[in-house]
Amino acid sequence: MTMAQRDTPAPKRDTYTPDSLLAVAVQIFNERGYDGTSMEHLSQAAGISKSSIYHHVRGKEELLQRAVGRALDGLFGILEEPEARRGRAVERLEYVTRRTTEVLMAELPYVTLLLRVRGNTKTERWAMERRREFDHRVADLLKSAVSEGDLRADVAPRLATRLLFGMINSLVEWYRPHVPGAGGVADAGAPAEAAEQEDAAVVDAVVRLAFDGLRIS
Amino acid sequence: MTMAQRDTPAPKRDTYTPDSLLAVAVQIFNERGYDGTSMEHLSQAAGISKSSIYHHVRGKEELLQRAVGRALDGLFGILEEPEARRGRAVERLEYVTRRTTEVLMAELPYVTLLLRVRGNTKTERWAMERRREFDHRVADLLKSAVSEGDLRADVAPRLATRLLFGMINSLVEWYRPHVPGAGGVADAGAPAEAAEQEDAAVVDAVVRLAFDGLRIS
Repeated sequence: MTMAQRDTPAPKRDTYTPDSLLAVAVQIFNERGYDGTSMEHLSQAAGISKSSIYHHVRGKEELLQRAVGRALDGLFGILEEPEARRGRAVERLEYVTRRTTEVLMAELPYVTLLLRVRGNTKTERWAMERRREFDHRVADLLKSAVSEGDLRADVAPRLATRLLFGMINSLVEWYRPHVPGAGGVADAGAPAEAAEQEDAAVVDAVVRLAFDGLRIS
Repeated sequence: MTMAQRDTPAPKRDTYTPDSLLAVAVQIFNERGYDGTSMEHLSQAAGISKSSIYHHVRGKEELLQRAVGRALDGLFGILEEPEARRGRAVERLEYVTRRTTEVLMAELPYVTLLLRVRGNTKTERWAMERRREFDHRVADLLKSAVSEGDLRADVAPRLATRLLFGMINSLVEWYRPHVPGAGGVADAGAPAEAAEQEDAAVVDAVVRLAFDGLRIS
């Protein structure tokens, strides 16, 4: 887990918001692993003193909690959306699959961190527990869709759920988001649209392969 | 990447074979990360002195090379099997999917290490390059199957290959092999058979979902 050498930047004024400090912390957690990250590493990466960081948060565990909390809020939020709550189970599962992929792409560093967390601290164990809960909610949906006769019954629901999430979650290995500019006019138009279309193609591909497979039926 | 506390075992006589030493090294690489593993860690885990380890290998990079080499030999070996070389591309791809899953399960720690390697040393870069080559060979097969009209053309082959491997490779996150006993009679019979059937069900599930998806068509 060596990271690219970083020149220590000159200390700068602390102009961080909770969100922008979190974004820096999550990047370092993902590069070095949560266990391998010290407050010193965070201080260097953010370019502000440790005491400035302590002005924002009680410590790195609070940063972890906020970061995985953001990912979990995104995921659990899906289950509250109307399309995830009404209709046939197969349609709801397809919706949840689509939205889970979208949330992963939109919140890539946060979901990446969530998926890599291994339980050494209370916060890590909490994150793993919540993630399992999400998986169980989706597994229940899958079971209902099997009961309703829309999904194949020859693969155990728990196994099918694992493989479904395996495919979705594998995006963290290679998907890299379009980096929008500062919102200026120069950044608008064709390139951003092309990136959006590419993202939509990835989401469509996940849904198609998960539900209908590679083969022409 | 904290690992469970290990009591340092009393030094023991070096009765390692190349394979048994490699098995210990791979376990430690997977627990600590390759970068995070020192010869001291290996010495402690193996319970023999560093100089005993140097009697077997030039250093930890040679252990990495042998370990990922074993995974790569398993994977590339699949492509040489008759069923991967003749017949319609869709059948060959299905065979390769099945066998890749089987090799991953049989060589779990070695394939896990291969999938986690990030290129800091020459050996890591070589491993990544070979892995990419394997992916490309499978992507070519997928393209041929699309050309032959057996696989859907509405998902880009590179993306489809990534999602296919995403599903297969996700097994390293949760699959744990049946640990056979020392080969004694007590271990034979029903439990081993049950484990084999479970393994076969996992392989079947991967192939079914990859090619035909969750939905009843």
